[in-house]
Amino acid sequence: MAGLTEDQLISRYFAPLATGAGARGLTDDAATLSVPEGQHLVVTTDALVAGVHFLADDAPDLIARKALRVNLSDLAAKGAVPHAYTLCLALPPGWREAWLAQFAEGLRQDGEAFGFALLGGDTVKTPGPLTIAVNAFGLVPTGAIPRRDGARPGDSLYVSGTIGDGALGLLTRTGQGLSALAEADRDYLTGRYLLPQPRTALAPAVLAQASASMDISDGFAGDLAKLLRASGGSADVELDAVPLSQAVRNACALDEAHFERALTGGDDYEILCAVPLEARSAFEGMARAYGVPVARVGTVTSGSHPPRLVRADGEEVVFRQGSFSHF
Amino acid sequence: MAGLTEDQLISRYFAPLATGAGARGLTDDAATLSVPEGQHLVVTTDALVAGVHFLADDAPDLIARKALRVNLSDLAAKGAVPHAYTLCLALPPGWREAWLAQFAEGLRQDGEAFGFALLGGDTVKTPGPLTIAVNAFGLVPTGAIPRRDGARPGDSLYVSGTIGDGALGLLTRTGQGLSALAEADRDYLTGRYLLPQPRTALAPAVLAQASASMDISDGFAGDLAKLLRASGGSADVELDAVPLSQAVRNACALDEAHFERALTGGDDYEILCAVPLEARSAFEGMARAYGVPVARVGTVTSGSHPPRLVRADGEEVVFRQGSFSHF
Repeated sequence: MAGLTEDQLISRYFAPLATGAGARGLTDDAATLSVPEGQHLVVTTDALVAGVHFLADDAPDLIARKALRVNLSDLAAKGAVPHAYTLCLALPPGWREAWLAQFAEGLRQDGEAFGFALLGGDTVKTPGPLTIAVNAFGLVPTGAIPRRDGARPGDSLYVSGTIGDGALGLLTRTGQGLSALAEADRDYLTGRYLLPQPRTALAPAVLAQASASMDISDGFAGDLAKLLRASGGSADVELDAVPLSQAVRNACALDEAHFERALTGGDDYEILCAVPLEARSAFEGMARAYGVPVARVGTVTSGSHPPRLVRADGEEVVFRQGSFSHF
Repeated sequence: MAGLTEDQLISRYFAPLATGAGARGLTDDAATLSVPEGQHLVVTTDALVAGVHFLADDAPDLIARKALRVNLSDLAAKGAVPHAYTLCLALPPGWREAWLAQFAEGLRQDGEAFGFALLGGDTVKTPGPLTIAVNAFGLVPTGAIPRRDGARPGDSLYVSGTIGDGALGLLTRTGQGLSALAEADRDYLTGRYLLPQPRTALAPAVLAQASASMDISDGFAGDLAKLLRASGGSADVELDAVPLSQAVRNACALDEAHFERALTGGDDYEILCAVPLEARSAFEGMARAYGVPVARVGTVTSGSHPPRLVRADGEEVVFRQGSFSHF
């Protein structure tokens, strides 16, 4: 505790972030949230714990931005436009005001970048690790949003960005490997682990064209299996079509085991979606227009068997680890 | 970790609580929330940490119900009807499935009792203490809700229920005193600490008649000062009109120090509101009709001095501790 009361902490660091009218500058016990006619709210919540989802000595502004971005990633996968969030922050013993100032600065940066205003929150102390719970609100036009369970045989499977950067970035961040990799590659991977890139710009394309969608947070292979299980289908996946960054390719060249790690590890925060045949060109066109790289990685098939993951040479691959879990 | 995956835990214990259509049985990454025309959402969030806001060995169903109720209390003070909530749950090492089953049963009980459905959530592990963050949604008709800052000179100040039970209940729960009190009184106080009574039934009266309102969670004296500071006024308070339970009266008879503890300690979860003169009889009539005891404890005055707290014999009291803080 840094000599600040909770009220001082709120008025100094959090109230400036609460720019919406309904937040009342955080001077009240509750906020109001009006939903424009013809729209409804998409609500998602993710909690992050130091030592589990990030490292306690990560830069405070990056911790804050990651806490927002993992939630923004869920909104994007549902086609929603970021609107507002609430924040519960449990501060460990010995927290410092300078730390909090940087944390709030991170919230401010990404709040502005994504049009995502603080609506309310609660700050408590904890004898345990720093814990952050963000409840995110997005807006979508009234009607169906892309769910996990809408993929149909014949739909194409797409992923945004590149896969595996976060999983290998955890290794470079913690010094658990990849020391033979070039420094620039290591820095790139660490950066991708620390600061995921929510695919907010892709949300309109997902909303308009995807039959099913989710964000990839627990590994490409495991989350793909979840989407297919929910949809009651399977898939043929061209493993070599899964987009990898040059840094991940370089890591795989050093040690082939990194390929499985990249495709099954967590922290991608990319979008996985299914797009019907007739919507493919529109989807790809919108993605290009919005500047988000997407790659077609396979096709949904019927049947309840696990997705077939096939390399370019025809070899079928079965990963040992089905899905990553922070839990 | 009790041998359950996060998905199993969700489907077994939380999905049955997610009865609203927008929650999709918790099978997706986000929920949708539609707001009926002519209404808007009131949003509030409160986090609870074991060892700070409750004791780790409190009954799991009571912990769950308290986590909901502290949020329901905020909704009630803003005149809102409970609608839905999200839950972030950080489980400590060694949690057991039987514990979780009871926790979920507590959520179910109060969810049904208050018409408060689970909308979504996140379950994570923590190396620290059990931590619970609830984000609560209530509905109110579009228009102004009672805020902290609307009290005007001449308004009457009311509190619901009784004050100080929670603060003395913390003593009886932890065995830190009050051993001379009759067992029935101790049980009553402990019960009030463990399971606050959100004044949901009073919400319509508050919405219709109060000029300002907040829930009392950090002590009557401190929260009264906050309401008056926000409103830019002061008050004359008749301390002996502050409603006390018989158990608190008995505790004060044993040791006068308990009076200050009762009026400054936390965990009341009663409503403090200001009601204009012309609305008093309507407010009291509605409270009676809804079965919620309310007591008029003073009058808002002009000026920026701290509220004058006066006993029946004319003695003015200044409490040493201004406000309780969980922070």
